[in-house]
Amino acid sequence: MPLKPDLPEPESVQKRVGLAIVGLGKLSAEELIPAIRTSKHTRVAALVTSDLEEGHAFARAFDLTDEDVYSYDDFESLKNREDVDGVYIVLPNSLHRDYTERAARMGKHVLCEKPLSVNAADAQAMVDACRAAGVQLMTAYRCQYTPHHWAARDAVQGGKLGPIKLLDSMHVQVEEDAEAWRMKLDLAGGGPLPDVGLYSLNILRFVLGTEPEWVFAAQHQPKNDSRFREVEESVSFMLGFPDGIIANALTSYGAHKTTTLRVLGEEGSALMEPAFTYTGLSLILTDKDGQTIPAFGSYDQFGLEIDHFAERVRDGKTPWTPGEEGVQDHRIMDAIYQSARTGGRVQLEKYAGQDIFRGEKPQLPE
Amino acid sequence: MPLKPDLPEPESVQKRVGLAIVGLGKLSAEELIPAIRTSKHTRVAALVTSDLEEGHAFARAFDLTDEDVYSYDDFESLKNREDVDGVYIVLPNSLHRDYTERAARMGKHVLCEKPLSVNAADAQAMVDACRAAGVQLMTAYRCQYTPHHWAARDAVQGGKLGPIKLLDSMHVQVEEDAEAWRMKLDLAGGGPLPDVGLYSLNILRFVLGTEPEWVFAAQHQPKNDSRFREVEESVSFMLGFPDGIIANALTSYGAHKTTTLRVLGEEGSALMEPAFTYTGLSLILTDKDGQTIPAFGSYDQFGLEIDHFAERVRDGKTPWTPGEEGVQDHRIMDAIYQSARTGGRVQLEKYAGQDIFRGEKPQLPE
Amino acid sequence: MPLKPDLPEPESVQKRVGLAIVGLGKLSAEELIPAIRTSKHTRVAALVTSDLEEGHAFARAFDLTDEDVYSYDDFESLKNREDVDGVYIVLPNSLHRDYTERAARMGKHVLCEKPLSVNAADAQAMVDACRAAGVQLMTAYRCQYTPHHWAARDAVQGGKLGPIKLLDSMHVQVEEDAEAWRMKLDLAGGGPLPDVGLYSLNILRFVLGTEPEWVFAAQHQPKNDSRFREVEESVSFMLGFPDGIIANALTSYGAHKTTTLRVLGEEGSALMEPAFTYTGLSLILTDKDGQTIPAFGSYDQFGLEIDHFAERVRDGKTPWTPGEEGVQDHRIMDAIYQSARTGGRVQLEKYAGQDIFRGEKPQLPE
Amino acid sequence: MPLKPDLPEPESVQKRVGLAIVGLGKLSAEELIPAIRTSKHTRVAALVTSDLEEGHAFARAFDLTDEDVYSYDDFESLKNREDVDGVYIVLPNSLHRDYTERAARMGKHVLCEKPLSVNAADAQAMVDACRAAGVQLMTAYRCQYTPHHWAARDAVQGGKLGPIKLLDSMHVQVEEDAEAWRMKLDLAGGGPLPDVGLYSLNILRFVLGTEPEWVFAAQHQPKNDSRFREVEESVSFMLGFPDGIIANALTSYGAHKTTTLRVLGEEGSALMEPAFTYTGLSLILTDKDGQTIPAFGSYDQFGLEIDHFAERVRDGKTPWTPGEEGVQDHRIMDAIYQSARTGGRVQLEKYAGQDIFRGEKPQLPE
Repeated sequence: MPLKPDLPEPESVQKRVGLAIVGLGKLSAEELIPAIRTSKHTRVAALVTSDLEEGHAFARAFDLTDEDVYSYDDFESLKNREDVDGVYIVLPNSLHRDYTERAARMGKHVLCEKPLSVNAADAQAMVDACRAAGVQLMTAYRCQYTPHHWAARDAVQGGKLGPIKLLDSMHVQVEEDAEAWRMKLDLAGGGPLPDVGLYSLNILRFVLGTEPEWVFAAQHQPKNDSRFREVEESVSFMLGFPDGIIANALTSYGAHKTTTLRVLGEEGSALMEPAFTYTGLSLILTDKDGQTIPAFGSYDQFGLEIDHFAERVRDGKTPWTPGEEGVQDHRIMDAIYQSARTGGRVQLEKYAGQDIFRGEKPQLPE
Repeated sequence: MPLKPDLPEPESVQKRVGLAIVGLGKLSAEELIPAIRTSKHTRVAALVTSDLEEGHAFARAFDLTDEDVYSYDDFESLKNREDVDGVYIVLPNSLHRDYTERAARMGKHVLCEKPLSVNAADAQAMVDACRAAGVQLMTAYRCQYTPHHWAARDAVQGGKLGPIKLLDSMHVQVEEDAEAWRMKLDLAGGGPLPDVGLYSLNILRFVLGTEPEWVFAAQHQPKNDSRFREVEESVSFMLGFPDGIIANALTSYGAHKTTTLRVLGEEGSALMEPAFTYTGLSLILTDKDGQTIPAFGSYDQFGLEIDHFAERVRDGKTPWTPGEEGVQDHRIMDAIYQSARTGGRVQLEKYAGQDIFRGEKPQLPE
Repeated sequence: MPLKPDLPEPESVQKRVGLAIVGLGKLSAEELIPAIRTSKHTRVAALVTSDLEEGHAFARAFDLTDEDVYSYDDFESLKNREDVDGVYIVLPNSLHRDYTERAARMGKHVLCEKPLSVNAADAQAMVDACRAAGVQLMTAYRCQYTPHHWAARDAVQGGKLGPIKLLDSMHVQVEEDAEAWRMKLDLAGGGPLPDVGLYSLNILRFVLGTEPEWVFAAQHQPKNDSRFREVEESVSFMLGFPDGIIANALTSYGAHKTTTLRVLGEEGSALMEPAFTYTGLSLILTDKDGQTIPAFGSYDQFGLEIDHFAERVRDGKTPWTPGEEGVQDHRIMDAIYQSARTGGRVQLEKYAGQDIFRGEKPQLPE
Repeated sequence: MPLKPDLPEPESVQKRVGLAIVGLGKLSAEELIPAIRTSKHTRVAALVTSDLEEGHAFARAFDLTDEDVYSYDDFESLKNREDVDGVYIVLPNSLHRDYTERAARMGKHVLCEKPLSVNAADAQAMVDACRAAGVQLMTAYRCQYTPHHWAARDAVQGGKLGPIKLLDSMHVQVEEDAEAWRMKLDLAGGGPLPDVGLYSLNILRFVLGTEPEWVFAAQHQPKNDSRFREVEESVSFMLGFPDGIIANALTSYGAHKTTTLRVLGEEGSALMEPAFTYTGLSLILTDKDGQTIPAFGSYDQFGLEIDHFAERVRDGKTPWTPGEEGVQDHRIMDAIYQSARTGGRVQLEKYAGQDIFRGEKPQLPE
C-alpha cells in the first residue's frame, strides 16, 4: 500500500505537538515533513535552514508562512514560539550537540537524527544538557518503532526460535559523492559505520535486548579513492553478547545496496531482507515446519517514530529510544574504531538486564 | 529433477576407474555409492568396513561379491586388486592421515573426504606421502565442482559485480548426538568449524581465488551441554583478503540449518542460499537492473567431484582441489582456533596469486 | 521506495495543465490528488463534490481556496475557469456519460476513470460527444502507463518468450460493503467484472496488442448473500485471440485479494504478481536459462497516466488509451455477460491489426 | 534432500509385493524402478519389454536374472510367477485396456499409469474386467499421494481459506518430438489434455473433493506444425463445480514448462507452483496475516503411490484412486473435447457427495 498524505484534520491540527525542522535536506523534504503531515500527533510549526529562499518555498508548499522560516542564526527566536514544542534535528552529526544544547536551553524537547552525535562523550553531554533542562531527548531510531522489527524481536525474545546462538547483519550502499558531508570526518564522526552500519548495531541490540560485552572490528580505507580520504570505506565488526551469543556485521559505502538481519536460534531462524529500508521491509521466520511471512498493514516508519516522540512530550515519560540509547551505540562504535586500529578485541563496560537504555514501549499500529 | 540411478552401461563398466570405499556410514550409503553408480568414469570396486555383515549386504545391493568386502585389518589386501585404482576415504577425520599413507604405500590414488585431516601438519604429511608415492591426493570439496558455485565465482571474478568489497557466509546446523564422533576432539579435530564451517571458509577462498592474510575469530563452548564437552558449539570468524576485502563467517552445531554465501561488490551482489546443501542450491545475482536467477540442468554434486578425480587418475594432472587445497584450509582453521583462544588477530602466511593451491579446472556439465 | 510529495516548483505550477477533480472519494483523496501534486505537468485547479464542507477542507489542504470548490449543480461554472483545462471524472460509472458530455459541451478535456461507462453504447456516446466537441477523451487505464506492464508487453511482443500460446489473469478481492455503489447494478453496470476484472481484460489485450475474436464466460451470483442481490459475485471468462491464442481470467468480489497476469510462450513465460496493485508490482521472466526480475526506479502509476493526459491536452494527439479503448472493453464485457447468460460462445466483431484502438505511445520514466 | 536408494533390507525383500513392470521407457527407468527399489512394500519381480537385450541389461542392473525378463508375447507367462503379485502398466494409453484385461485374467492386480485409458468407455471396461476378476485396479495418480497436495486439500476443505470461490491451474510443456506416441491420436487418445492437462483436472477435483457439473472448453491445433497433425496443441477448459465454484485450466504441448494450482477462498488463497513436478513442489498459503510455506521431509512421490497400491493388494481395500477415479476423469475429458468441438457448455452427470470415486485414504509420510 502506498503511503500518501491523508487529508489533514483541520480542526485538530492546532492541538498537535508542534515541531521545528532544523535542516532542510533530502531526508527532511522527502521523508520527515511528509511523515509529520500524515502523523497523528504532530505538525510542522517552523523550519530552520541556511537557505531562506528555499525555506520560503517549503513553507508555501506546506501551509506555513514566511514567518515560520528561520535562519540558523535566528535559531534562538524559536524560544518565543509557544506553538513549537520541540525540534527535530536533521543536521550533520557534529552539529547535533550544539543545537541540542541550544534547544534544551530554550526549553524545547529534542528529537535528534541518528547517530546521536560523533562520539560517546559528546552524546553524553547532550543527554546531560537535556536532563538539566528538563526536556526530552529522543534518538530517532525509526527501526525500533516498526511492526516488522518488533515482530522479529518478539520471535527472538518470545522463544519462537529457541535459544539464540548467532546473528548477522549487513547495511551497505554506494556513496558516490566525495563532497558529501558524510565523507568529512569532522562533520560525520566516521564513515559508513555511524551512518548505515549503525542500523545493524542498533537493531542487533534491539532484537536481543541485551548489551554486547566485547567487540572486534576491521576496516578498510582505500588509498586511491578520493571519497575515502577521511573516512573508511568498509567496516566489519563482531560483537560478543551475554551467553556466548555472537553477532557479525558488515557495513560499507562501496557496495551495492544491501540490508539484512539474520538471527539463528536452535529451533528456527529469522531473516529480514530488506531490513532497514524506508519501505518494503520483509520478515521471514523459518523452522522445521516451514516458513511464515507475516503481513502488516501499511505504515510510515518516520510517522510512527515521530508520534512516539509526541506522546512522550505530552506524558513526560522516557521515550523508547532516549538519548541514552544513542550514547550506548556511540560507546560501541568508539570501541569498534579502537579495535580496528589495534587489531585486538575491545572489552565493553558490562550492562546486565534487558533494555536498560530504553524507556516506554512504543505502541504499534493495529 | 530428481537424481535417480541411470541404467548402467554394461559394456563399459569394467573400463571405469575402480574405487574402494573406505568407511560405510550414512554419507557413503546415501550419497557416495549412488553417485559413483551414476558417474561417468568410476565404479565401486571394493568396500572396506568394520562390519563385514553389513558390508556383504551392501555388496549384494550393488552387484559386488563378498570377496569385494574387506575389514580394516585387511586394508592392505587391496594392493593386489588391480581393478582398484583408488580409495575414497570416508572415515573420522583423525584416521584420514593413516589410511592415506597406507593407500599411498600400496600405490593407490586417494580421494579424501573433507576436512583433509585434523590440522595443517597432519594434512601436509598426507600431501608429502602421496607425492613420494607418486599417487594423486584430492580433497573432496564437492562445492568446487558445481555449476552453481562456478557461476557465483564467475560473477565475482568476471567483474559482473564490480570490484568486490565484502563477503559473508554461514553454515550452521543442529548436531544432537553427543556420542557422534564429530563431537570428539581427538577424532574430529574440532567441532562445527572443520565439519560445516569449512564449507564457508573453502568457498569464500574459491570464489575470490585469493588467500586470506589474517584471521580473527571467537568461539563459544557452553559449559552445561554434554554435547560440547570437547568441541565448541559455535565459531565466528573474520578473514582479511588482499585489497582490503573482508569476509565474515558463522558456523555452529547449535542453530537451525542455514547455509548462505553472499558477495557484495560495487555494482552488484551475489547470494547463494542454500549455499552448501546436496541439492536445491540457489544463486541470485542482483544489480541496478534487477535480479537474475540462472537455471542449470540437474546434476549430482558428488558425481561431478568423483568424475573429476577419475579424470585426474587417468591423465595424471593435478586435481582442482588437491591435497594442498586442504592443507591451506587447515592452516587457516588452525589460525582461527588460535585467534579464538588469544582474542587477537592472527596473521597468515601470505600467498600471492590466483588459485595457487588448485590444479586442473573441472569440466562443468553442459 | 516511497512516493512522497517532492517540493513543488513554484515558478512552474501556474503553467501546468489545470484539472478539476469531479468526485472526492477515497481514490481521489488518497491517490489522484497526491499523484497530481507530484506530477510533472498537471495541477489541481478545482474540486467538484456533493459535500462542500469536505471540499473546503480538501481545498485548504491542497493550497486551493473555497472558490475552487464546486457542487455538482455548479459543474457548468467550470466553463468560465480558464485555468481548468480538463476534468478528471471519478464518479460512479453510470454518471460518467453525463459528466463527460457536459464537460465536452464546456470545451473541457476529459480524463475518465475506468470503466469508461456502463455498456458499449453509452461509452460510444461519450466518444462521439468528445469528438464533436473537439476535446480529448482518455480512459484512465493506469496499468497501460507503467514500466512494469510495458516490460511485460515488450517481452511478449519482442519475441523474448517465443510465440505466445496461452494467457491467464486473475483480479479478485473481497467487497464487504453491501451498500457500496459498486454493488448497485444501475450505478456500476455490473459487479467485479467492470471494476476489477476489467484490469485483466484490458491488460490481456494490451500485452498482446490484438483483439479477441470470441468470448465464453460463466458467472456466479449467490442467492443468500445480501451483497449480491444485484450484481454477480464472480465471473470466469475465456477469450479467443487471433492465431489460436487463448486467455483465461477470473474475477470476484468474494475472494482474498489476488492479482496476477501470466503469459506462456514457447520459449519462456512472464508472470506479474501482484499485477494490478497501486504499488509493489513484480515481473518475473522465465526461460531455459533461468529467471530475470527487472528492477525499475520508483514511480507513481497515477502520475504517469495523468501526465500522459496532460501531454495529449497540450499536443492534441490521441492518447494511448482514448475513449475508443474503453469502448472496446465494454463491447467485450457486454459479450461476457451475454455468454454467461446463454452458456455459449459469443463471437466478437473482428478487428485486425495491432493496437488499433490506441493512440500516441506513452513515455516511460527513465 | 535427494532421494537416493537406501540400502536394501535383504531379510525382508522376499516378503514384499512383487511387481512386473510392463514397459521399459524413460518413466520406468528413471522414476518407477528406482522408486520401487526405495519403497517400503514392493519389489521389482519381473520386466516386460519389446527389447529383450535392453531388458536383460536392466535385469542385471537391478539384481534380477534374464529369466525375469519377458517379451510382450510372453506376457501370459507371468501367470505362473507366484512372486508377481501385480503389474505396473507403463504403456501407450491405448494399450492400457488390453494389458489390464489380460492381467486381470491372470489374477494379477493392476496399477496403471494415467490416463487410465483413451476414453471413458474403455476405462470403464477396465474397471469391469478387474472387478470381475477380483483384482485391484488403481490409477497411478501420484499427486493424490503427496504431503504437499494433501496440505493444499486440507487447507481447502478444512476451512483455512474460508469458503472457496475460484480455482485455476496450468500444466504446459513443450513436446518437440513429432514422432512420439503421445502425438498419435490412436495411441494417446488426445494431446496434452490426457497427458499433462489431466493433472490439473484431477487435482482440481481432488482438492475440492467434489465433481464438476458442467464444462466448457476451447482448443487450438495449428495447421502448419507437423507435431500437431493428429492431436491438439493447447486446450483451455472451464469447470463448474457445485455451489457456483468455477475452475479454469490451461494445458499445452507448445509452451514453456509451467505447472500451477491456485485456490481462491474468501479468507485466503493457496498456491502450488510448481504444482505437478516430480520434485521441488511448493505450497504457499496466504491470508490477511501473511504467508506460510509448510515444509515436509523428503519423499518419493512414486514410492508413496506404489506403496499405497501394495497395501491395498495386501488388505483388499479399495485404493484411494481406483479405476473409477480414472473413469471419471475420462468422462470429463470426453466432455471437454465435445465442448471444444461444439463451442457450447456440456453438462456432466451429477455426482453428489465428497470423494465418491475414491477409496481408502493414503497414509502420508511422517
